[in-house]
Amino acid sequence: MAQCLPAENLTVIVNVGDDFDHLGLRICPDLDTVCYTLAGLANPVTGWGLADETWAVFERLKTLGGPTWFHLGDRDLATHLERTSRLRAGQNLSQITHSFCQAWGVKLTVLPATDDFTPTWVYTDIGTLPFQEYFVRCQCEPRVTGFRFEGVECSHPAPGVLESLLSADLIVICPSNPWVSIDPILAIPGIRDALYPYPLPPVGRGEQEKGIRKRAVLAVSPIIGGKTVKGPAAKMYAEFGIQPSALAVARHYGALLSGFVLDVIDAPLAEAVQAMGVPTLTTNSLMPTPDERRRLAQEVLDFGRQLLVNDDLQEEKVEYRPH
Amino acid sequence: MAQCLPAENLTVIVNVGDDFDHLGLRICPDLDTVCYTLAGLANPVTGWGLADETWAVFERLKTLGGPTWFHLGDRDLATHLERTSRLRAGQNLSQITHSFCQAWGVKLTVLPATDDFTPTWVYTDIGTLPFQEYFVRCQCEPRVTGFRFEGVECSHPAPGVLESLLSADLIVICPSNPWVSIDPILAIPGIRDALYPYPLPPVGRGEQEKGIRKRAVLAVSPIIGGKTVKGPAAKMYAEFGIQPSALAVARHYGALLSGFVLDVIDAPLAEAVQAMGVPTLTTNSLMPTPDERRRLAQEVLDFGRQLLVNDDLQEEKVEYRPH
Repeated sequence: MAQCLPAENLTVIVNVGDDFDHLGLRICPDLDTVCYTLAGLANPVTGWGLADETWAVFERLKTLGGPTWFHLGDRDLATHLERTSRLRAGQNLSQITHSFCQAWGVKLTVLPATDDFTPTWVYTDIGTLPFQEYFVRCQCEPRVTGFRFEGVECSHPAPGVLESLLSADLIVICPSNPWVSIDPILAIPGIRDALYPYPLPPVGRGEQEKGIRKRAVLAVSPIIGGKTVKGPAAKMYAEFGIQPSALAVARHYGALLSGFVLDVIDAPLAEAVQAMGVPTLTTNSLMPTPDERRRLAQEVLDFGRQLLVNDDLQEEKVEYRPH
Repeated sequence: MAQCLPAENLTVIVNVGDDFDHLGLRICPDLDTVCYTLAGLANPVTGWGLADETWAVFERLKTLGGPTWFHLGDRDLATHLERTSRLRAGQNLSQITHSFCQAWGVKLTVLPATDDFTPTWVYTDIGTLPFQEYFVRCQCEPRVTGFRFEGVECSHPAPGVLESLLSADLIVICPSNPWVSIDPILAIPGIRDALYPYPLPPVGRGEQEKGIRKRAVLAVSPIIGGKTVKGPAAKMYAEFGIQPSALAVARHYGALLSGFVLDVIDAPLAEAVQAMGVPTLTTNSLMPTPDERRRLAQEVLDFGRQLLVNDDLQEEKVEYRPH
């Protein structure tokens, strides 16, 4: 998306439900991965952390009997140290993220979904685990029975989050884990409401002419051919007794969607999604390279634009057939 | 001392008044320097931190606008991270120090003077500064008017401190800064009392025969020829209107002393110290090399032994003349 849009036209809202405290440091894995990636600093091999990383602190920690299950590179540690220090000094996460993005040369707007600490707990057959314990330490092996986003009921969207959602033409729910990466965002009071296709309930053409903005909310399926490229989303669906599929993802987001993007391998599911009243884009949704990422982003943007134009032309958008 | 004595015969009690919180980490500079030195890991050039250190975290912190006045090497950071993490988990500083010393192969007993956080504040002409702000950030430039050891009134000697002081044959106050390295130890309730030559007030030969232990308390002057090898001790004496000298140091410890060690350059002051009733050892107290350190330690040990023997032979020890 950052390759396709001017920085001022793109806002990235990031899950912070996987944030946790480790060695006394506030660590925000999703937020850091997004920022490092946008800055061109991300480690392309691991999928987390920084490229050209060194491990002097971590190696030394081992000799002191420190925890070794969560790998922390030296450069990455600087992020956590400075963030934790600033949080203690009273800055909030969105201010810190803005400052870090400036330091890293990230020009578009990256917002944590909330400045509040709303850690995800994973209920499993071996007990209730903090998310990173489940995800990293246990490598997603325990059988999941549910989630809790601690304190999310009392949390608030970070400054700019609702504003950007309400003023956006197009909102894309990226192909991330619906249960533990997207739901923690949607659970923040106010965000789900702000995602519905219209800021106010649609009351007919007349209201729209009075200036109520239209926008499209798209989701890209993280499940391709019943599997996930990485991460436990498909496993989680299966553990909840739901056949993991692009259709399951579309149902997960349900009424939020004005459009849905699924992989060509899942083309047979497109009709069932459309039957939900959700137009679909069927395309190659794997994006192993930057060029592939740009191609998919552009297709998603074009799909969104078509939906908006289409919405101008007809009351009923259910029948819309992309491509 | 560690070169001269079996590990089981030596306990090192270390100032923690210079401890402070930085980047959310509890940093114990004196304690770490002592442990790193005993482990053979200390940086011989800087006088703090670890040898063969790398600076990946620190360099990265700079790019994020983090604090740069207190240098933190990568390996050193592991110490602070793990210590802080354990403190948060409820371990106390002496337990952590014991564990770290085991990891570092330090066999003798190193005790923080207290497990309580008793940070030193320095009153200066530019305001009241946390010790490390004065010492590192301001490089001891402000004019000092006083000190406060925050919370020391309510602190307790760490487990083993009083026991080791009361059972010791010889207690050596090392040539450290009397104001900010030794006084913060002496200010901990119970420690000064435990340092007096006899655990109970001396009540004559009869009592001693009943088994009251005798021991010697020596101090080695950190001031040589009116100057300090490093650090602001001499500057502090001058700022308090006291001529910085070995004599000033002897007066500083006063009634605590059963003996005093001063440099040959300060030989003219020995008589004044002896006039206080304190026997002196005049020797070369500079110790730039490990061999010199061993030589001085051995001389101090011998001096202490002589005082104890001497004490057996005569009631009046004031006249004792070493060498």
